[in-house]
Amino acid sequence: MEMARTEFILYVATSIDGYIARLDGSVDWLPAPDENSYARFYDSIDALVMGSTTYEQVLSFGDWPYPGKVSYVLTSRNLLTTRTDVFFVKGGIEEVLEDVNRKGYKRVWLVGGAKVASSFMNRGLVDEYIIVVIPTILGSGISLYQSVQELKLDLIELKSYPSGLVELRYKQN
Amino acid sequence: MEMARTEFILYVATSIDGYIARLDGSVDWLPAPDENSYARFYDSIDALVMGSTTYEQVLSFGDWPYPGKVSYVLTSRNLLTTRTDVFFVKGGIEEVLEDVNRKGYKRVWLVGGAKVASSFMNRGLVDEYIIVVIPTILGSGISLYQSVQELKLDLIELKSYPSGLVELRYKQN
Repeated sequence: MEMARTEFILYVATSIDGYIARLDGSVDWLPAPDENSYARFYDSIDALVMGSTTYEQVLSFGDWPYPGKVSYVLTSRNLLTTRTDVFFVKGGIEEVLEDVNRKGYKRVWLVGGAKVASSFMNRGLVDEYIIVVIPTILGSGISLYQSVQELKLDLIELKSYPSGLVELRYKQN
Repeated sequence: MEMARTEFILYVATSIDGYIARLDGSVDWLPAPDENSYARFYDSIDALVMGSTTYEQVLSFGDWPYPGKVSYVLTSRNLLTTRTDVFFVKGGIEEVLEDVNRKGYKRVWLVGGAKVASSFMNRGLVDEYIIVVIPTILGSGISLYQSVQELKLDLIELKSYPSGLVELRYKQN
């Protein structure tokens, strides 16, 4: 019996104009996520992948928000942690792919940022896109999609929340 | 009895990453609009406003697509037309506001492009935003929102179409 390949899911919040952060990287304009929606998603994933800028931003928010699930941090730097669920990966995407397959993870969350997301996208490795549209127009900012090739997706689900958040779910076309 | 102020509606199609056109201005990636949805919207408006770049792009598509409804084209150039429903406006937004109020138009469509849309937005004159999200990630392109200030909106309606198009309707917060 063949094992199913690990699925990678990009789950991000964007402004109406498609930005994930202000030009200076700040995300102070993001509202609190809808708890039910986020909890359901978080329960569905087995591990996380992020770049080191995202990692350091997450650290700056206070308590580590992803305890108990393995977080891969892609970096060329020599970072250290006392956590046993954070792994610094110098071997790039290949090393992550190998490890998640070996451990049999089914669903892995691509947390960001733009470089990590774009690398996975350009290799056709993003199985699902969950995009939460915040009811704000920023006017300028950092796009999640940098140096990515044009990509057509299939809409598979659409939800809205009382706060005005809209969740769009797409899969690879 | 006081007359209600004319409402301005921004109705645009964008890619998932928030672009209205490729970097070279082309819109070849746009699918045909959902006929029912477009017809319902088009019937609801009394006049159109666009910039001269948008005007010339629309002309290049062939037959004039907005016959019988007044189209204001904001431009500083000396443009000519034989159409009786196209008006070139050199006096900027003020001239449009004055004329639509005088004629008693209730709903006016801001067709684009970025400069016209941004000018109306920055004056707080956009009452409704109807954003049709095309299931495509472009990777790069022209944003509709240029030099606009941050703006929080209220979600008022959400629809999806069999083609995967999603229509988000917001009003001024």
